[in-house]
Amino acid sequence: MRQADAFPRSGRAYVLALCLLLLTAGCATVQPDPLPAWSDGKAKQDIVGFVARVTTQGSPDYVPGPERIATFDNDGTLWAEQPMYFQLLFILDRVKALAPQHPEWKTAEPFASVLKGDLKSALSGGDKALLEMFAATSTGMTTADFEATVSEWLAASRHPRFNQPFTAMVYQPMLELLAYLRANGFKTFIVSGGGIEFMRPWTERVYGIPPEQVVGSSGKVRFEMKDGKPVLTRLPEVDFIDDGPGKPVGINLHIGRRPLMAFGNSDGDLQMLQWTAAGSGARFMGIVHHTDAVREWAYDRQSSVGKLDKALDEARARGWTVVDMKQDWKAVFPFERK
Amino acid sequence: MRQADAFPRSGRAYVLALCLLLLTAGCATVQPDPLPAWSDGKAKQDIVGFVARVTTQGSPDYVPGPERIATFDNDGTLWAEQPMYFQLLFILDRVKALAPQHPEWKTAEPFASVLKGDLKSALSGGDKALLEMFAATSTGMTTADFEATVSEWLAASRHPRFNQPFTAMVYQPMLELLAYLRANGFKTFIVSGGGIEFMRPWTERVYGIPPEQVVGSSGKVRFEMKDGKPVLTRLPEVDFIDDGPGKPVGINLHIGRRPLMAFGNSDGDLQMLQWTAAGSGARFMGIVHHTDAVREWAYDRQSSVGKLDKALDEARARGWTVVDMKQDWKAVFPFERK
Repeated sequence: MRQADAFPRSGRAYVLALCLLLLTAGCATVQPDPLPAWSDGKAKQDIVGFVARVTTQGSPDYVPGPERIATFDNDGTLWAEQPMYFQLLFILDRVKALAPQHPEWKTAEPFASVLKGDLKSALSGGDKALLEMFAATSTGMTTADFEATVSEWLAASRHPRFNQPFTAMVYQPMLELLAYLRANGFKTFIVSGGGIEFMRPWTERVYGIPPEQVVGSSGKVRFEMKDGKPVLTRLPEVDFIDDGPGKPVGINLHIGRRPLMAFGNSDGDLQMLQWTAAGSGARFMGIVHHTDAVREWAYDRQSSVGKLDKALDEARARGWTVVDMKQDWKAVFPFERK
Repeated sequence: MRQADAFPRSGRAYVLALCLLLLTAGCATVQPDPLPAWSDGKAKQDIVGFVARVTTQGSPDYVPGPERIATFDNDGTLWAEQPMYFQLLFILDRVKALAPQHPEWKTAEPFASVLKGDLKSALSGGDKALLEMFAATSTGMTTADFEATVSEWLAASRHPRFNQPFTAMVYQPMLELLAYLRANGFKTFIVSGGGIEFMRPWTERVYGIPPEQVVGSSGKVRFEMKDGKPVLTRLPEVDFIDDGPGKPVGINLHIGRRPLMAFGNSDGDLQMLQWTAAGSGARFMGIVHHTDAVREWAYDRQSSVGKLDKALDEARARGWTVVDMKQDWKAVFPFERK
């Protein structure tokens, strides 16, 4: 105590005041709204209320930190998916870019139609045509080369309607939701039908979701030595489709715990939402409903991309949270706010 | 300042002293050795030196937190694997437990030999026999039921030599290493040839490694509705073998980043170590060499379980860290220290 008394009186008081300030700062400041792009409506109330219930110690719905797993579909839930999945735009661009090395594509479908700009004919071949284009553009190379190709395409290409980089076509309210959940001890995961290696090059930078928290569809990969160095080569063979009933399987394989919260936007997310809902205690099931044709797109039951029909009925019947994009979101894309 | 002066003089000094104490505590305390079960030798120096280099800001080898991925084999690296993989002991015990429901096993191999206690004959059928026993004991049930079965077995069974629960047969120095790495911002993963769902029920409790950071071999799983509730059913079909060249493939699929540090103990870990070593900048490759027949087991080049031959040669040729269990570990199992 004597030593402390040797401080000049004013200096002592200053340090004391500073200490008190530091001690009380946590309580005294007013917290800014963590979800400013969300309108004050039921969807936002559902989210904030749920997070409070599962994170408040002593609450009957309290869930320990490590079990706060939140899974998000990507296409149509975290970023846009119109006029078609962005990964399909990537594949079509790669067909065009690689065409000079493949003169045979001038007469072979589905490539010939892509090169003529006749997308409808190209896609009329269904899954078989898609798989052929996937194999021709996205396999037969190392994982490192594929990652570089994805990154270069994302840097160089723009969305046809908004003339924005695809990584800007993400939903501002969902970026806020991801950050809000993480600030509340949730671990955020992507569980997408898209290619796992198509997403990983950019999800950490754009969403704050690291590669190890991305679950998606995958092709087979082989370890081999190339010029004395080990590489992983992408093979033209589907390994796993992380869509529909595949989503709970992918969650089980990659995460190994049932989500506490899941968000999707289409029938491809129904089983993930059912799997989440079947857990014990409080769970949150959310659906992004595309209702805004002006700022984004309006589509649901009849859409060829992101069809939302059975999942919408089940959401309404079971009281899941349906986010009405037009009503519930003050802003859709980050670039609107500039 | 006036308000602060209203405090009694002694109270003020007390708060001041407390604040100074709090401010200096971080610098003034002597850090206890984070690796007390490691002898002061080259292996420990390699580990501590490496961690310092990659975590010290300004160091040419500095690696940002999110990229500090450390992968560990399980059998023989984090817990023991003699006299045989513990998962095989589980399968054999399950054959015996399920035998009353399978009278046909009395005459059908490999089950008949297991029930007679003739393990050598049972295992003479190789992978086919193993797969049959795996299918009969570990599939055809929900993932939840399998998890419960594993947990019950672990609670009830004891290691034949040490009479300890299998989850006590973990290496004290490796537990310390895992905690030390996490305290230095590493994310620790298991990358094991063992079944991913055989490990997940206990790795968080025993190693502090959560289910989503466990990579392993897996069988196919199907999502289905059972009495109106969604379940995941384990199918009698291998999905992925996370061993040898499968380990870099599993790392790529589940983690999506190259490890900064990898630890194994057998030739089944060689490709994981090669894949790690092929990364840019500083990397750490470690091998646990089983050299202690008294406290554990001594085996390497000729062993049927955990054979360490090519990987030992490559480790020595390339200067990887080979941990000599007898020399480098003051204690092997946690129960020795009681």
